[in-house]
Amino acid sequence: MAADISEQPEAYARLLGADHSGRIAEVAAAIARRRPRHVVLTARGTSDYAALYGAYLAEIRLGLPAGLASPSVTTLFGARPDYSQALVVGVSQSGHSPDLCEVVKVAREAGALTLGITNEPDSELAGIAELVIDLSVGVERALPATKTYTAELLALLMVIEGVRAGDGRLPADERAVLDTLPELAATTLADDTPAELAPRYRFANTLVTAGRGYGYPTAREVAHKIMETSYLPALAFSGADLLHGPLAVTDPDVPVLAVVGGGPGGASMREVVTKVGQRRADVVVVSATDVPGTTARLPVPAVDERYAPLLDILPLQRLTHALALARGENPDSPTGITKVTPTR
Amino acid sequence: MAADISEQPEAYARLLGADHSGRIAEVAAAIARRRPRHVVLTARGTSDYAALYGAYLAEIRLGLPAGLASPSVTTLFGARPDYSQALVVGVSQSGHSPDLCEVVKVAREAGALTLGITNEPDSELAGIAELVIDLSVGVERALPATKTYTAELLALLMVIEGVRAGDGRLPADERAVLDTLPELAATTLADDTPAELAPRYRFANTLVTAGRGYGYPTAREVAHKIMETSYLPALAFSGADLLHGPLAVTDPDVPVLAVVGGGPGGASMREVVTKVGQRRADVVVVSATDVPGTTARLPVPAVDERYAPLLDILPLQRLTHALALARGENPDSPTGITKVTPTR
Repeated sequence: MAADISEQPEAYARLLGADHSGRIAEVAAAIARRRPRHVVLTARGTSDYAALYGAYLAEIRLGLPAGLASPSVTTLFGARPDYSQALVVGVSQSGHSPDLCEVVKVAREAGALTLGITNEPDSELAGIAELVIDLSVGVERALPATKTYTAELLALLMVIEGVRAGDGRLPADERAVLDTLPELAATTLADDTPAELAPRYRFANTLVTAGRGYGYPTAREVAHKIMETSYLPALAFSGADLLHGPLAVTDPDVPVLAVVGGGPGGASMREVVTKVGQRRADVVVVSATDVPGTTARLPVPAVDERYAPLLDILPLQRLTHALALARGENPDSPTGITKVTPTR
Repeated sequence: MAADISEQPEAYARLLGADHSGRIAEVAAAIARRRPRHVVLTARGTSDYAALYGAYLAEIRLGLPAGLASPSVTTLFGARPDYSQALVVGVSQSGHSPDLCEVVKVAREAGALTLGITNEPDSELAGIAELVIDLSVGVERALPATKTYTAELLALLMVIEGVRAGDGRLPADERAVLDTLPELAATTLADDTPAELAPRYRFANTLVTAGRGYGYPTAREVAHKIMETSYLPALAFSGADLLHGPLAVTDPDVPVLAVVGGGPGGASMREVVTKVGQRRADVVVVSATDVPGTTARLPVPAVDERYAPLLDILPLQRLTHALALARGENPDSPTGITKVTPTR
């Protein structure tokens, strides 16, 4: 898992390279030509949070209504929602989840434009979807997904910004920011705060994570990863939802991990952190700047919130890894997960 | 809270009465005439799970793509997704959540057909939405929502089945089933198993809830309610998602509450219960029939899974109430919630 984590700057550089970015631009141009009216994403496990990021991007950057499909509607109840005006995106590292493949297949038959994003170009998903993006991050050695997750995020960002541009090619200013990503990722991963913080959670019984807007998928993904590898119940909330009742579970014994960006999502999260702090909860933030009333900070570079999910998850992956080791678990092959989970 | 819970059969009867069902039929007919191409629901807290039920109904019963809006997209990031072909439904007992009202307002300006479902016909939401359904369940005395939640479920079911019929009026067979609901609800609430089971969870540190398809909103809502009233972290999963990693948090010390219906969702959940049982977890089911490998069963009437959420939540509300009392908490006015939570 540590090796997979360390390869992420390189994975970013590969996707941003001429070869891959040219192919992603072609996919984006094909989508722009078809002018979908809305976006439906489908995924399972970790890829679900990448899909959620894609939904935020589609709504905010493209102005297209976007949401995540509930596969059971199609696979169990046999419904055939009218996806004829939709872009339907399946996100899966393995490309073999049966429910996801069925949703994409049914959507394509209904006339949807379909896109598969996967690390396995020979997978079932890649065969079913009309358009395919190959993540090319190489074999992921550990069972918990790390480099495939961040590659999914970057692929979704590149394709959606390409659709926004119209011709599939990223505008120069966007391109300039993205070109700094590999180095920013390497700098972020070089910081050892996560390893220093992990022992504090050795005896925690539960964790709460929170983020808002673009930061919400990061909160969901780290909670999932901690459950997978440390078997520690972790509750993920959008900052706003946390205030609608569940705030009551926070107290000095329930540590909170909060993603606090530098934009509107982060501004909203600062209010949430204040309210959580009033309950005397222990709050650690992922942030580029200090946040009043918090115990510690996992430092990340200051970037537009749109790019932050590509960097914010990195110290949290390291924290997850170190925490599993501190708890005497094996983060590389936790019980309870397999690379392909065949749900229907 | 106990009084609110006990009034639900009566609240069902009122919504099903000629007066309200006539008005809901008019709303349904108006929606059918406008032929929306997709459905976007928006809500916060408990109403969010009613909205999720509405999304399943819209996809399965109407064949319309449906999903829940992330309010932050509109309220924080200023996006204006193209809702011109959408039915946008705001669900809120108080009708005063600022973020929800803003989403509905922006959607109406964009040309969406808007519907507000609320217990406060004089609320901001009722003023903003083009169509309004008044739940008329009377004042909810306890802070945790119970009778407003189930009234939201029934209103969504009636309006969506009315749209499916085309003229807004429920078909006779549907109507016949719904007319039995008040009595089925009363029978369900008369069973004392929830009160007998509650003390078992007195010293639990965490709970897991699970359901699939129509049963998933029930799993989400009971987890929320337990967090609100017993301050006990409760993790809710779709049965399929539980198998993608989080299954690892289940063990003999983490009790599982599973919603197992009599249709395709329940069949899928039986497999999940078997896998959870292999981890020696303590599983209690909400089910009309016994489920192998479980500790106990909260009995509910056998109905089509489409109607099950209206009954399955009832013993879980009673369980939540009894558990809060067993833990020495006050379920009527827990800390951490207010009737109107002003998030943006």
